[in-house]
Amino acid sequence: MSLVVAKFGGTSVANAERVMSVAKRLVERKRAGDQVVAVVSAMGKTTDELIELADSVNPNPPAREMDILLSTGEMVSMSILAMAIESLGEHALSLNGRQVGIVTDSTHGRASIREVRADRIREALSEDRIVIVAGFQGIDASGDLTTLGRGGSDTTAVAIASGIKADICEIYTDVDGVFTADPRIVPHAQKIDEISYEEMLEMAATGAGVLQKRCVEFARNFGVVVHCRSSFTDEPGTIVKELDSHMEKAIVSGVTHDLSEAKFTIRDVPDSVGVAAELFNAMATANLAVDMIIQNVADNGHADISFTTPKSDLDKSRAVVAKVVEDLGAREFIVDEDVAKVSIIGAGMKVNSGVAAKMFSALADAGINISMISTSDIRTSVVIPADKAIEAVLCLHTAFGLDGESVFQETQLSAEELADKAKKGR
Amino acid sequence: MSLVVAKFGGTSVANAERVMSVAKRLVERKRAGDQVVAVVSAMGKTTDELIELADSVNPNPPAREMDILLSTGEMVSMSILAMAIESLGEHALSLNGRQVGIVTDSTHGRASIREVRADRIREALSEDRIVIVAGFQGIDASGDLTTLGRGGSDTTAVAIASGIKADICEIYTDVDGVFTADPRIVPHAQKIDEISYEEMLEMAATGAGVLQKRCVEFARNFGVVVHCRSSFTDEPGTIVKELDSHMEKAIVSGVTHDLSEAKFTIRDVPDSVGVAAELFNAMATANLAVDMIIQNVADNGHADISFTTPKSDLDKSRAVVAKVVEDLGAREFIVDEDVAKVSIIGAGMKVNSGVAAKMFSALADAGINISMISTSDIRTSVVIPADKAIEAVLCLHTAFGLDGESVFQETQLSAEELADKAKKGR
Repeated sequence: MSLVVAKFGGTSVANAERVMSVAKRLVERKRAGDQVVAVVSAMGKTTDELIELADSVNPNPPAREMDILLSTGEMVSMSILAMAIESLGEHALSLNGRQVGIVTDSTHGRASIREVRADRIREALSEDRIVIVAGFQGIDASGDLTTLGRGGSDTTAVAIASGIKADICEIYTDVDGVFTADPRIVPHAQKIDEISYEEMLEMAATGAGVLQKRCVEFARNFGVVVHCRSSFTDEPGTIVKELDSHMEKAIVSGVTHDLSEAKFTIRDVPDSVGVAAELFNAMATANLAVDMIIQNVADNGHADISFTTPKSDLDKSRAVVAKVVEDLGAREFIVDEDVAKVSIIGAGMKVNSGVAAKMFSALADAGINISMISTSDIRTSVVIPADKAIEAVLCLHTAFGLDGESVFQETQLSAEELADKAKKGR
Repeated sequence: MSLVVAKFGGTSVANAERVMSVAKRLVERKRAGDQVVAVVSAMGKTTDELIELADSVNPNPPAREMDILLSTGEMVSMSILAMAIESLGEHALSLNGRQVGIVTDSTHGRASIREVRADRIREALSEDRIVIVAGFQGIDASGDLTTLGRGGSDTTAVAIASGIKADICEIYTDVDGVFTADPRIVPHAQKIDEISYEEMLEMAATGAGVLQKRCVEFARNFGVVVHCRSSFTDEPGTIVKELDSHMEKAIVSGVTHDLSEAKFTIRDVPDSVGVAAELFNAMATANLAVDMIIQNVADNGHADISFTTPKSDLDKSRAVVAKVVEDLGAREFIVDEDVAKVSIIGAGMKVNSGVAAKMFSALADAGINISMISTSDIRTSVVIPADKAIEAVLCLHTAFGLDGESVFQETQLSAEELADKAKKGR
């Protein structure tokens, strides 16, 4: 008998038919002898529709009210799933963020989980029920509803799994697991059977959309084993857990890409102490994320500083940078939206030198110009022109021996479609 | 400065535009110096849509889960209204059934209010906020969400008004107030400016749809003055309150009709003690409502019993009655679905004899046959053929001097449309 937490995203519960199929899966699981807790997101596009509704009465709604509004999405899906389970003859109990006892701070819209009180889940499990928990939400100390931010349901699932000491946390999605590259652009991408928390974190941080970075961090911090798998098949997916580093391991586990960032370059900044600090303090104060940073000093005592930042906040970033450029007396700044970040990730990089060099050579052989480089222990990322992204991912996937024999049959994205996704910031 | 509770139904908050118009009304009210608490229903057809969704996964859903599901409807409208108010520059705070502290029993789907804890409303009012409360919902002693049943938002409003000792409880609807008859079939119907709780109770019980009987009972029991008015105009509507009976008062205040009931007749029941008790106990045990009852004894020692009951439960009623007919050894039973109940209501009937006789004469003059009669202190109701309902209401409205000079311009229902509504049980 295992104690299982299973999380289903919005696509998996998009309509009554899919809810029934999730219910069947849970009931089968229970009848096979497991104790089952399900965590659900809002049905289909519900959250987007609620945001749109709010926007139509107030483009800048109070965060507390927004959280109350959004929390209803998961309350609908959890009660519908509980009803579906009861219709199949098993007992269910749905619990929202308050009822389950997920206590967060009061940062409405992106609250952090402080505590999971698992008593009511344990009680319901001992009554032989399948427990359904609303993802994405909690309550703060004053009892107001909070939400954890986009992708928060994955974090809810991992937090619940940690709180009830589950044997495994299964994250069901519309893909088969974590791949060596996005199978929509790399037909020979392979599913990864097992991956370490560290590698998964780097993959998530550099564009692999399947798991949220935050949920992986939570899983790593609390030692929760995560199984990322498809809600449409019974095939095993990818297990994310602590892995021993061993020599036989592939040097590079995956290639990721990210088209959601723009590159800022500030030209001819006076090269004095504290210049970079002033710039990035200004960005941080405005709550703007900065990813890669490079600075090089020219002979004339002036420097160029480049950095990348999400396109979603582009207008705000422009305003902040324009002000800093004026304050510093820099010459100008340039924004390039047509960039892609391509990364290779692998724990084997720690003990194998020359991996970065091999990456740069492969890109050079393909005639792809690199404009920024950043590295960590187990990752090397480069910024290249957006229209070269597909070519770069394909050539790196081959260069590091990741191509599998099977050919992924589903939709292949063209360069145009990729560019279109880039425009939309994802 | 007044302390006002204002309740808005689903039609009044059906879309973003209407929510903004409700917000404007509340903000104007507050800026005029009043303290304002709004109670809202779910937007438009939300509740029906949620019921349909539930039905698609489980035709007989667990009541607890159904209440969680339905409670989300009012949580959406309350947060959207709060956002709309904030966009107009006033501060708002939305509170759901749990947050506001409406404690009910555990009868999911039609819970009764036990207690209203008004602390959080008072606190928010003292912070100069407009308070928005989710109608229709509460929590039981174990903290589970409950709903009060259809029309429960009116009851929420009256309960809140009582709990915070509001000066008035305004119920906003899509009609101008309470009329002497349904203006859709009586063009000369007049709006009633003031009506007593007792008369309003009888009107609500006999077919006037504008206020729920339950909410009027609550208002009477706790002395809450109710103002029933239109959300589309600023015109005053109808005030429901304790009225001194005074001689000058109209003998009859209104004429109502109800096409939602069917008439059962059981023929040749042995006329022995306890027969009626057995029949109506069986109906009560099956949770079936019985409205009018008549029994007459024939010379042969057998009796006929007739009663009316809602068409919505017709199949269930047939089954119960068939069983009783067999048990009692009665000859047969007949069901007539084509009946209408037409009633005259007026506190003046208490001190004026001959009102019922005048009613019967007016109907006889119009050639309308009466099949059942029931009376109370301030009401006389008759059952007649459904296709005579419009004619009966018109002739009684004239006979009791209720016709006004103004002609109601909006949609007039034809006999066919009325029959169609009757088929649908309303």
